Parts: sequence; C-alpha cells; structure tokens
Amino acid sequence: MKLGVFNDGIDTAGEQIYSILMIGQSNMSGRGELYADAQINNPNCVMFRMGRWQKMCEPINPDRPYFGINYPSGSCLATSFADCVANEYGIKVGLIPCSDGGTGIDAWKKGEVLYDYTVAITKLAMRSSKVIGIIWHQGETDAYNPEKATAHKQKFIDMITDLKKDLGLEDVPVIIGELARNYQRDFGDNPLIINKQYHEIANEYDGFAVASSEGLELKADGLHFNLKSLREFGVRYFEEFKKLVK
Amino acid sequence: MKLGVFNDGIDTAGEQIYSILMIGQSNMSGRGELYADAQINNPNCVMFRMGRWQKMCEPINPDRPYFGINYPSGSCLATSFADCVANEYGIKVGLIPCSDGGTGIDAWKKGEVLYDYTVAITKLAMRSSKVIGIIWHQGETDAYNPEKATAHKQKFIDMITDLKKDLGLEDVPVIIGELARNYQRDFGDNPLIINKQYHEIANEYDGFAVASSEGLELKADGLHFNLKSLREFGVRYFEEFKKLVK
Repeated sequence: MKLGVFNDGIDTAGEQIYSILMIGQSNMSGRGELYADAQINNPNCVMFRMGRWQKMCEPINPDRPYFGINYPSGSCLATSFADCVANEYGIKVGLIPCSDGGTGIDAWKKGEVLYDYTVAITKLAMRSSKVIGIIWHQGETDAYNPEKATAHKQKFIDMITDLKKDLGLEDVPVIIGELARNYQRDFGDNPLIINKQYHEIANEYDGFAVASSEGLELKADGLHFNLKSLREFGVRYFEEFKKLVK
Repeated sequence: MKLGVFNDGIDTAGEQIYSILMIGQSNMSGRGELYADAQINNPNCVMFRMGRWQKMCEPINPDRPYFGINYPSGSCLATSFADCVANEYGIKVGLIPCSDGGTGIDAWKKGEVLYDYTVAITKLAMRSSKVIGIIWHQGETDAYNPEKATAHKQKFIDMITDLKKDLGLEDVPVIIGELARNYQRDFGDNPLIINKQYHEIANEYDGFAVASSEGLELKADGLHFNLKSLREFGVRYFEEFKKLVK
C-alpha cells in the first residue's frame, strides 16, 4: 500500500512494520518529563498517526494537552520498549497509541468508546503492519476502591479476550506492567491486590507476562513514573516480551 | 454517555458538544509556531482524543512529531475558528482532528486510509457530539503539477460527497480555505487554478464557502502559514461559516 508521502512525511511503503498496541491509562500513555534531547531516535521505530506511520517521537500517545493541565502528555515506557524490540530482532517497529489517562477497567469494556476506538485504530494499523504484541498498564483508577481492585482480574481477562478475538490476535503476547510500589495516593494495599492478580493471570493463561515495577521512581506528583524509570520499565517489558516470543 | 473521568481528565458527560471535523493537509493540521502563552484558553472548546474530549490545546492535530523534523505539529487555524464559534453561539465546541500533512487529494479518496480513518474517528465522535461543520485546507501537494491541479475540483467533490453521505452529514456546511498567494515553491500558477475551482464549487453547490487567504503570511519555510495568520485565517473561516449556518 502506497502511503502518500510529501516532504514532511516518511515513506514506509513496501517495508514490513511489526506493530505494538499500547493500551491502559496514564502510566501507559506516559506522563514522564519531555525533553527534545532525551528522545530515542531510532530510524526503525515509527508511530501511528491519522492512519499512517510517522517517525517515533514523544509524546507518542497524545491523549492529553501539553500546556495548562496538571498531567500533560509526556515521555512513555513504549519508547525504550520499541527501541529494544527493533534492535533485538532487526525489524521496523510501529507503536499504535490507544491508551487514555484516568480510565478505570470498566471504561475499557467492549462497546465502551475506548475499546471501540482501539479496535478501529488497530484495524487501520493492521492494513500496513503485523501486530506482534500488546502492552498494558492500568489499575490506578481501580486502586481507590478495594472492591474494584478485587474485581479487576476478571474484568481485565474479559476485556483482553474480547479484544484479541475482535482483532484476530489470539496468539499475540500481552505484557502487563505492575502498578508502582510507592504511590502517594490513598490507595492502601489495592495496588498490591491488583499486582497479585496480574501474576495469577500470567501463571494461569498462555501468552501473558508481567514486568516488575520494583525500584522504579515516581515524579513529584506521586502518581506517574519519571522519565528515567519509564526508560527502565520499557526495557523490563521487553525482557518479558522476549520470553513469550516463539 | 458517561466518559470515565479521573483527576487529569475532563468531564463532558451530559453536555451537548457541537463538533467540527478538520481534514486536509499540513496547513489544516497546523505548522504554526507553538508557544504555551499563545494558547487560546476557552473552557468551551475541546478536542477529540482516544474517543473522548479533552481541553483544547495546540497541537490539536498531532499528525507529526514535535522534535527532530522540519515541519513539526504546531498551532493551527481551527483554534481561533472554534473559539469564535463557541463565543458567537454560546455553545461547547469540539474539534475532531483528522488532517494529515503531505497528502494529495488522491490520498483522500474513499477506501484510502485517511478517508477511512476520518470516517471511523468521526463516527466515534458522533456518539458524544453533533457535527455542525467540516473545515478543509489542502492542495499544496496537487499544486506541483498542472494536470493534478486541474483535476482537483472533481476529485474533491467526489471525496466530500462520499464522506458526507457515509457520515450522514449531507446538510453540514463545508468551509474551504484558499491556498496561499505567496508560496516559495515551484508551484507556478497551480495554487490559483485550485483556488478558482474552490470558488466555482461554492457557487455551484449549496453548503460550501471559501475563506480568503489574501494578505496572510507564511513562515520562513515558504510553505506554512505563521501563527498570526493562522489565527486570522480561523476567523475568516468562521465568517464564512456564519453565512452558511441557518
């Protein structure tokens, strides 16, 4: 498929792109510090925009403004993840950003707008790429409430099962990131409840793995991973991804 | 529809949003200078992201990176346009960004990825808004070639007719912006040919109007309107929009 190229676009026609779907809430979208000179410039990494592929550049998942709000879009964990995948396998990697801040697991159910957005966008991306992985980070919104935290596991399984089926991606690995160990929020033990569920999922189901958040640091907001830890977290996602790739 | 709100999102549940579809190429996407303190902060203007509405903030149409390329996403004409519409009618206005730089009219044909992306995104936006206008700026890619310039009119009419039909928006006004008068590119008279066609369309078809580019200034790149002229252009789009609104 010819992708229509002008002097400010990039031409990916004829190249095989292996894509990664990004879903979850703010710590997948990425609220890390954003500096031009901290960009990972890998010519083999691209991101999905308006149905076409563009040079990978943060913010990759533009779910929020950049000015005038508390938690603007910023650097994310997918950047170092994509960089590792491209380098390890010598392939062109495309990121499909569908993550949205502040969204609990109920907002991701089939038929909700986030789910349907993800299906629509990923189908468009599949015209010009092959999806090889799904990366997920979510749970903070459900961690405010012990009942929601306890119900998280089954709701996640239902959602991801629907999603993989609707996209024909049943065999594609899913990497889940642990919630942070050190939020400065009124979460109690709920993040630990959710992390335990994620590890249960990885033990009970094929094709799931969990990246550890041990030692990762948050920004001063007490809620979002900082740039350095996002880079490290992306590498940990990659290490888990490698174990699942056949 | 409840839109799932967290501490960094905005709650639009229960509010009527009147939306505007942005399509075309780089001068619709916006390549103007981007400054935090030049933002138009209107609490009645929002933009569509991941299926939900967020505070309007440039870059509204994130079709390009912000770092490391010649023509990054920047300020755009839709910002002052939305501000005028919200203020004039006392309504909440939502922008649906589907414009993509470097795309000739052939890339916008029904079945091409940009067209299908636009249909998918606009349908999602129509779950939580009523579309009241379509704004278009395109033609530079077709202006490199006199045959393409001459063929532009019919291709545009075919595309926009399909699009309005597929979205059920037959009665929604379309505002087209003239190409600039002063590109520093090898365009010859082709921008004038395309502008003449746009005025013919406005004369021949109901529901179309053309915003003048007279006196507007380009950036040093000789291709893209500067911030000041984008603000002015948005106001001109609004003046034309007002004439078409019943």
